[in-house]
Amino acid sequence: MLDNHTKIAQWVEQFRPYAKEGNCASYIPALAEKNPNQLAIAVIGPDGSEMRAGDTTERFTLQSVSKIVTFILACMDKGLPYVLERVDVEPTGDTFNSIVRLESHQPGKPFNPMINAGAITVSSMLSGDSPQEKIDNLLRFLEKMIGKKVSVNEEVFQSEWHTANRNRALAYYLMASGYLDCPVEEALEVYLKQCAIEIDVSDMAMIGLIIANDGYHPLLKTQLFPKQVAKLTKALMVTCGMYNASGKFAAFIGLPAKSGVSGAILAAVPSHAGLESPFPTGCGIGIYGPAIDTIGNSVAGVHLLKYIATEWNMNIF
Amino acid sequence: MLDNHTKIAQWVEQFRPYAKEGNCASYIPALAEKNPNQLAIAVIGPDGSEMRAGDTTERFTLQSVSKIVTFILACMDKGLPYVLERVDVEPTGDTFNSIVRLESHQPGKPFNPMINAGAITVSSMLSGDSPQEKIDNLLRFLEKMIGKKVSVNEEVFQSEWHTANRNRALAYYLMASGYLDCPVEEALEVYLKQCAIEIDVSDMAMIGLIIANDGYHPLLKTQLFPKQVAKLTKALMVTCGMYNASGKFAAFIGLPAKSGVSGAILAAVPSHAGLESPFPTGCGIGIYGPAIDTIGNSVAGVHLLKYIATEWNMNIF
Amino acid sequence: MLDNHTKIAQWVEQFRPYAKEGNCASYIPALAEKNPNQLAIAVIGPDGSEMRAGDTTERFTLQSVSKIVTFILACMDKGLPYVLERVDVEPTGDTFNSIVRLESHQPGKPFNPMINAGAITVSSMLSGDSPQEKIDNLLRFLEKMIGKKVSVNEEVFQSEWHTANRNRALAYYLMASGYLDCPVEEALEVYLKQCAIEIDVSDMAMIGLIIANDGYHPLLKTQLFPKQVAKLTKALMVTCGMYNASGKFAAFIGLPAKSGVSGAILAAVPSHAGLESPFPTGCGIGIYGPAIDTIGNSVAGVHLLKYIATEWNMNIF
Amino acid sequence: MLDNHTKIAQWVEQFRPYAKEGNCASYIPALAEKNPNQLAIAVIGPDGSEMRAGDTTERFTLQSVSKIVTFILACMDKGLPYVLERVDVEPTGDTFNSIVRLESHQPGKPFNPMINAGAITVSSMLSGDSPQEKIDNLLRFLEKMIGKKVSVNEEVFQSEWHTANRNRALAYYLMASGYLDCPVEEALEVYLKQCAIEIDVSDMAMIGLIIANDGYHPLLKTQLFPKQVAKLTKALMVTCGMYNASGKFAAFIGLPAKSGVSGAILAAVPSHAGLESPFPTGCGIGIYGPAIDTIGNSVAGVHLLKYIATEWNMNIF
Repeated sequence: MLDNHTKIAQWVEQFRPYAKEGNCASYIPALAEKNPNQLAIAVIGPDGSEMRAGDTTERFTLQSVSKIVTFILACMDKGLPYVLERVDVEPTGDTFNSIVRLESHQPGKPFNPMINAGAITVSSMLSGDSPQEKIDNLLRFLEKMIGKKVSVNEEVFQSEWHTANRNRALAYYLMASGYLDCPVEEALEVYLKQCAIEIDVSDMAMIGLIIANDGYHPLLKTQLFPKQVAKLTKALMVTCGMYNASGKFAAFIGLPAKSGVSGAILAAVPSHAGLESPFPTGCGIGIYGPAIDTIGNSVAGVHLLKYIATEWNMNIF
Repeated sequence: MLDNHTKIAQWVEQFRPYAKEGNCASYIPALAEKNPNQLAIAVIGPDGSEMRAGDTTERFTLQSVSKIVTFILACMDKGLPYVLERVDVEPTGDTFNSIVRLESHQPGKPFNPMINAGAITVSSMLSGDSPQEKIDNLLRFLEKMIGKKVSVNEEVFQSEWHTANRNRALAYYLMASGYLDCPVEEALEVYLKQCAIEIDVSDMAMIGLIIANDGYHPLLKTQLFPKQVAKLTKALMVTCGMYNASGKFAAFIGLPAKSGVSGAILAAVPSHAGLESPFPTGCGIGIYGPAIDTIGNSVAGVHLLKYIATEWNMNIF
Repeated sequence: MLDNHTKIAQWVEQFRPYAKEGNCASYIPALAEKNPNQLAIAVIGPDGSEMRAGDTTERFTLQSVSKIVTFILACMDKGLPYVLERVDVEPTGDTFNSIVRLESHQPGKPFNPMINAGAITVSSMLSGDSPQEKIDNLLRFLEKMIGKKVSVNEEVFQSEWHTANRNRALAYYLMASGYLDCPVEEALEVYLKQCAIEIDVSDMAMIGLIIANDGYHPLLKTQLFPKQVAKLTKALMVTCGMYNASGKFAAFIGLPAKSGVSGAILAAVPSHAGLESPFPTGCGIGIYGPAIDTIGNSVAGVHLLKYIATEWNMNIF
Repeated sequence: MLDNHTKIAQWVEQFRPYAKEGNCASYIPALAEKNPNQLAIAVIGPDGSEMRAGDTTERFTLQSVSKIVTFILACMDKGLPYVLERVDVEPTGDTFNSIVRLESHQPGKPFNPMINAGAITVSSMLSGDSPQEKIDNLLRFLEKMIGKKVSVNEEVFQSEWHTANRNRALAYYLMASGYLDCPVEEALEVYLKQCAIEIDVSDMAMIGLIIANDGYHPLLKTQLFPKQVAKLTKALMVTCGMYNASGKFAAFIGLPAKSGVSGAILAAVPSHAGLESPFPTGCGIGIYGPAIDTIGNSVAGVHLLKYIATEWNMNIF
């Protein structure tokens, strides 16, 4: 596997320069201050073996990557039918913060849990009598997956909390249409705190691995969440995971993946999809490259992932 | 394999009653007259072995299933970059005949080749100096895949031609925005004739098999179209193939598939996705059940496909 | 003028039964409890002479009728250019609480001050360092026009405040786009308090008279606000005053008017428009009929106003 | 009146330089070749007296100004209820050639006769068994108003006919929704020929005068069309006549007016609205200035009309 380690390190350097075509998200001060040239990757296989390269010690916030974790947790907490009654699973082609469809498609059920509207609805459904309880449950769920403690970056949360007008508009609109399960400000607190959870590329790769493995944690040897929820989550990642570039990502890379404006990308390579790769029974991938494009995806990160998926023949189609 | 033959025949009868929840497409007389209770399936594996059940001798028109064939052919004729400059590959969440997005998302490039707007653009790009030449090229391409002659059902074409006002609106709008490669009426003639090509479930299964096989025809032992085009097509089928129920189809069935209002469904099971099925190296599936739901998908057909995909563990995610 | 008094009393009874075609606004408890069969009218001429009929002692809240008063006051406080930089004066054809256009027409400037989005922007511009100061200024302005004290109905305000999710969505969206002049919750407090100001038909007729008179108070013999602001306000009433039935109201009645979901309608008959009426130099009209149609206009009120405008030839066109 | 003649000639020269801020419509060759610096005005009073200034001999095509004439004629031919069942009278805030609302507001009835969609519907309703008969009826109606023969500029018609893709899209969409009264190509022929009718500023002023006069031709001493239709038409001109700048035109000028992309503006000053002007009992105004703004209105023409309306106190509000 040494050879592959060397390769992956070279690839990181090869694609690092693409960061110049993007910029760090500017509307959150804590993100704007990040070093745009950073690029890191971690790949973890079902046996726990890991390949890492680049700025792997860098910690960053989950942002929209958190949406897949809360979706899974809400399905565990409330059951799939309850969740799907409150959020659909259809892609939209709209920007992540769009509000138009809530009004134009009555009765205003959010189209999927990967756009902000749907994600806020999902956050409102998490178990817990207060925002703190909901977040604590989420942190515990993440810790079970990752095997170590994670926490909310309070500075990032505060910064997003005070500039969340667009998200507040979405949340109040959802409340008006009956698609929130708790008070608006509580749902927003949960949503913005989950976005501000700090993590590194190895953590993301581990989460990706468990999703790839249909909810089964290969090291703990436990089924953490139902196979059906895992499959549905991967379908959502393919149809809606990369904002309104999801179609192109599916067409040219072909992996279930979810990105965040922090420059994070989490990918889940199903057990049967990387037969010719160093991970013939699937793997999880975590990538971090804070310079994002106008759509919200890490520029260098997408290039790196595309190259790896092609080289290792990981396209699920 | 006898056992599976028996099973599949039983399943057809098990799901046939679901046809009652749908109706034959009413706006095309030739479709409206079909027997809504019919249901048929064919599955073909890479060695050419075939399982069939139900009303398999019934012939029907491709309708929107043709969109994947013309997309592949346009990519072969003009090259992928040329095609992608004129049609995007993003899902929309809108109905198949929606015109709104052409105006609301300037400069009006159609979002994907599976909605009518994008499909008409694709039809206009096919090689040929006249509609007849374009259609002849398409028929030849289909014949190479299927191994037998196919033809346009003139009655269905005439019937659609005279009621195609909504498609004409789309085509003239595309022309106004510069997204048609030939005169409007010619593009429409090609589009409506491709929709009226007559076929049976075995033919569809064969096309599905070749797409599943990344463009390689396992019986002819020829690469009919590039692997990249096949992968992209499968991605499009997952993100946009089942009209604005594509997300739910991906979430609960997890197969690249394309439906048509004739009640046709074509699915492509990639080589690595049915490891535990009777077709461990992939297969093509053709289904026909003319009673469709309000979105445009065969009701009994979707139920049947969902059951088979689950039983045989064919979900690609 | 006795004869006209008799006539107008008869007309009220003639059109009162139309209330059956509407319903009291249900989403505000205080409005839902109103007697739907009530109907009242007051007409005041420049010499202060008044004709009244029906349930004229009934007090009710201004609701959207307040939008014209705050618009005038904001123009006085900040000057027309300042106001028009933050709100346009174009009709939309959309419902009063629509949010779509804020996103679809960048940069998201509200289209006019008669829809909720624009009205909230206007409320945020009123002079005053706190919501209370802004409202106090508004009450003082109203008192100058009407000649007596008016106040906010706290019960109605509280009731609207706790169910204002849709308006909150609008306000947060406006804040995100930079179209609010004060914090969201302050703007909403002003907006919802102005909606809850209590008044009667004579008060409304008096305000209508001053607007009709181009801002000149005929009894105080003072120019209360600039002629240009009055003309602009009347234009706005014609193009946007009756929700998304404004076009039909202009077409068939032809008077500057503004309605509210409380069932209030205020009309301003310009000095030159009622030459053949009992008020040959213009007048103000106040109508109250709490049973409203699905668009938000008093059913009996609109019928009554249409009849009077036709009988007395008051159409401005 | 000599004094006013001099004034008006001076004003034309004063506002002529504003043409530099606009451009001749480029998409119709015959319009693109026009001299952008031309500016002309004609004002006609009920006694037939006329004031003219500028390039008054210039002939130009009616373009969208024709929409008010066909609306009136359709109301005469079919009766108001028939017409209003097929086209609403609500302003939209959208561009003149927008198609979005036909889909987003089911069942797709066009919002008003001043946008292209509604105007094409109106053209389809004109009496006559062929496009030529419909146009002949229209020409006869115009000749009765103007008192001289008018005709279609074939070059302009041909030029528009071959580039009318956007209008064809609208027409086919209307046909699909059931809002056309004759075949699509016939409706388009009528619509594009009416747009290509050639006229001069005096002709427009004469039409404006008759509309101002509630359908009564003061020289022929005949009621050419019902008063109610005239009032409705003036209301439509105020709410929708100046494209998506109608609101601002009403707010700052306050006259019923209709513009065309040829640079034509027709205004109707009602009998009671110009009490202090040289035309105390109303008048018609025709203006021509081919340099238009991005919305479609003559730049110099709007400035000139605004100045005159203010100077002569013609604002109807």
